[in-house]
Amino acid sequence: METMNGRLDRRAFLRGGAAMAAAMTGATFVESAAAEPLADDPWSLVPGTTVPAYGVPSRFEKNVARTLSNPQGEPRTQHGRTPHHLLQGTITPNGLHFVISHAGDPDIDPDKHRLVIHGLVKRPLVFTLDALARYPMVSRVTFVECGGNSAPLFSKAPIQASVQALHGLVSCAEWTGVRLSTLLEETGIDPKAKWLIAEGADAPALSRSVPMTKAMDDAMIALYQNGERLMPGNGYPMRLLLPGWEGNMNVKWLRRIKLVEAPAMSYYEARTYAPILPSGQAYQFYFLQEVKSFITQPSPGLALKGPGFYEISGVAYSANGRISKVMVSTDGGQRWGQAALQAPVLSKAFTRFRMAWNWNGGPAILQSRAWDEAGNAQPTRAQIVAQRGETKAVPPVTAFPSQHYNGITSWAIDGKGEVTHVYA
Amino acid sequence: METMNGRLDRRAFLRGGAAMAAAMTGATFVESAAAEPLADDPWSLVPGTTVPAYGVPSRFEKNVARTLSNPQGEPRTQHGRTPHHLLQGTITPNGLHFVISHAGDPDIDPDKHRLVIHGLVKRPLVFTLDALARYPMVSRVTFVECGGNSAPLFSKAPIQASVQALHGLVSCAEWTGVRLSTLLEETGIDPKAKWLIAEGADAPALSRSVPMTKAMDDAMIALYQNGERLMPGNGYPMRLLLPGWEGNMNVKWLRRIKLVEAPAMSYYEARTYAPILPSGQAYQFYFLQEVKSFITQPSPGLALKGPGFYEISGVAYSANGRISKVMVSTDGGQRWGQAALQAPVLSKAFTRFRMAWNWNGGPAILQSRAWDEAGNAQPTRAQIVAQRGETKAVPPVTAFPSQHYNGITSWAIDGKGEVTHVYA
Repeated sequence: METMNGRLDRRAFLRGGAAMAAAMTGATFVESAAAEPLADDPWSLVPGTTVPAYGVPSRFEKNVARTLSNPQGEPRTQHGRTPHHLLQGTITPNGLHFVISHAGDPDIDPDKHRLVIHGLVKRPLVFTLDALARYPMVSRVTFVECGGNSAPLFSKAPIQASVQALHGLVSCAEWTGVRLSTLLEETGIDPKAKWLIAEGADAPALSRSVPMTKAMDDAMIALYQNGERLMPGNGYPMRLLLPGWEGNMNVKWLRRIKLVEAPAMSYYEARTYAPILPSGQAYQFYFLQEVKSFITQPSPGLALKGPGFYEISGVAYSANGRISKVMVSTDGGQRWGQAALQAPVLSKAFTRFRMAWNWNGGPAILQSRAWDEAGNAQPTRAQIVAQRGETKAVPPVTAFPSQHYNGITSWAIDGKGEVTHVYA
Repeated sequence: METMNGRLDRRAFLRGGAAMAAAMTGATFVESAAAEPLADDPWSLVPGTTVPAYGVPSRFEKNVARTLSNPQGEPRTQHGRTPHHLLQGTITPNGLHFVISHAGDPDIDPDKHRLVIHGLVKRPLVFTLDALARYPMVSRVTFVECGGNSAPLFSKAPIQASVQALHGLVSCAEWTGVRLSTLLEETGIDPKAKWLIAEGADAPALSRSVPMTKAMDDAMIALYQNGERLMPGNGYPMRLLLPGWEGNMNVKWLRRIKLVEAPAMSYYEARTYAPILPSGQAYQFYFLQEVKSFITQPSPGLALKGPGFYEISGVAYSANGRISKVMVSTDGGQRWGQAALQAPVLSKAFTRFRMAWNWNGGPAILQSRAWDEAGNAQPTRAQIVAQRGETKAVPPVTAFPSQHYNGITSWAIDGKGEVTHVYA
């Protein structure tokens, strides 16, 4: 059952426990139970804490937190990154969903907030939250990813940082709200409308242009995130949700949708998301967060504790639909084995992949590579760099290219079990 | 397109927005946009709040909270109930997952906590959290429901309370952990073992007997809840998860699994979950939380604001697999229409159902009824009461029967739009 370099293939999982048990025979990380009775721990001998009206994690989990780029809220952008190495499954809990906020999170009174839809419509309308609550709703699990997520991987030398620092600007949640197309059928659409401008109620009035094709496809006015109202940092009380598209376009604190003939060339589409390619052309109006994966366990900071069995696990996702396959290598891409995909595999959502691995204690390089149902393969880092260029700066990354990195990530493991970021 | 009493059937949803828009033409709950420019709200004119390391809901959502039966933590059971009428979708956010705690939530140090598996095994073993982290994991979305959820509906007269008070002891999350069968293959199983006793590390050392068939089927040692470690009230750092089975058996703060020949007849299985039926026999060792549904919107406390379009929405679930169909009535069960089911429809998980409704402003009685893929139909209240009896007490409900109510719930709407709980 063991394959190259200790990798245990997907069939071991599909066959179930017997195969796994065989692989773990002689596992040194489990203690035999002693014959004496089980001792009581101190917390079993006293009453516990009172159940709160709103639950929060244990005090022992205080390091499971977003890392903040601007913890004092100085007048510049704030990033809060998701600690993927400390999470499991596919849902990002609301407290840990990534946030990018350009002037802090506005403190919006939902009873006073309004959404206006106007411009090239037949009947401009203003929607209160109460009015939106009466429309048919839809729910879908989908990821949101910042276009700048993984930007450190454009640097010439691999930056030593955790998966949180490198890939923490993507998260996945169940969102519920009203389809934008439902509201646009209420307003009517002037056939001249080809784009819409979505504007937020944050201080910079962040605005982005969105093609009407996406608006009429799967765009949603999201009101709920994993069952409860949106978090303040994720757009409370409403945001535009464009499944699979660049995070910045999923305008938070949404207050206006204006239908127009041509894009507005707003700040983010004219500057931040218009990097110059090696060819000299601007890479503008690319919207999809294309097929990508990364390994979350093991990863830097999670050292292996001696040889033997481990599970290699991570997330894969694509704006082009479902993940069809994830391959994992433990030898830097020479040989690959197919990972198990956790069901259900949903379109434009995190898919958790898992691969059993029997580490022999020697050096290894872990990689994952994903494919989507549209036939797209996650590129190697070399392929991405050939297309987009490479930054010269080692952090902070200030130079282009810095957007839409979806290449392979490599984790090296040394003989002591330490994990580092490498290019391989 | 309109059917009996304003119900709009599932086909209206499947046809999409055009049909809905037709139903909403002339909606009086949307304002026309004025010609003048959009005014800036005060929160758009100042910097917002700093992004926190762990996000919490907006201060305007403070009433979206669990209701507590014992908020001072007196020495008796504490219940925290999920506010289903204020939630949407299928995932219950971790802060709002229901909790029942018999002596508060123990403050467990995860580095010191141990899980022992012993009894009729070949090799008794002790597992640390670090050791469990090395085993293959699985994720699944599943509901957990207290056997006593919905007990107020056994009372002779309908109790006027919210859906949170009546049905708030069920929630649904994505759980990740290690299959119990994986660990039992490590310990080996003596063929004489037919049951296991699961014991928690809370002060009462809550214990329940579980058949080995469930242990080897889909039982999990759950470590993560919606991506992050379990909440303290939901069993941190580990719990037994028995998808679809009575909540109390999903032993929280799990510290021991002992394989045995026969059930232990512990407190909960000998007393609480052994009610006497009208036939005089004890109703004991019934484990499944059978097919059930209830409407969350509209529901008591969420008054309708004038005639016109509303979405009727709720959750359905079954321990016997996927929900196959949900029917909704607006006239107290005389006529039924098929609700739309939100995809993906997962086994033993919440399924959100939705039905468009054009309220004519007159009296109505809303009901939902679910079927599962095993062919089970949610019973009427009359059917349940005929089998199990009816309590004489109006709250507090102290008399049997009080367990495993899965009958239909009815909400009456009067001419003013007020919603009350009725038997119909």
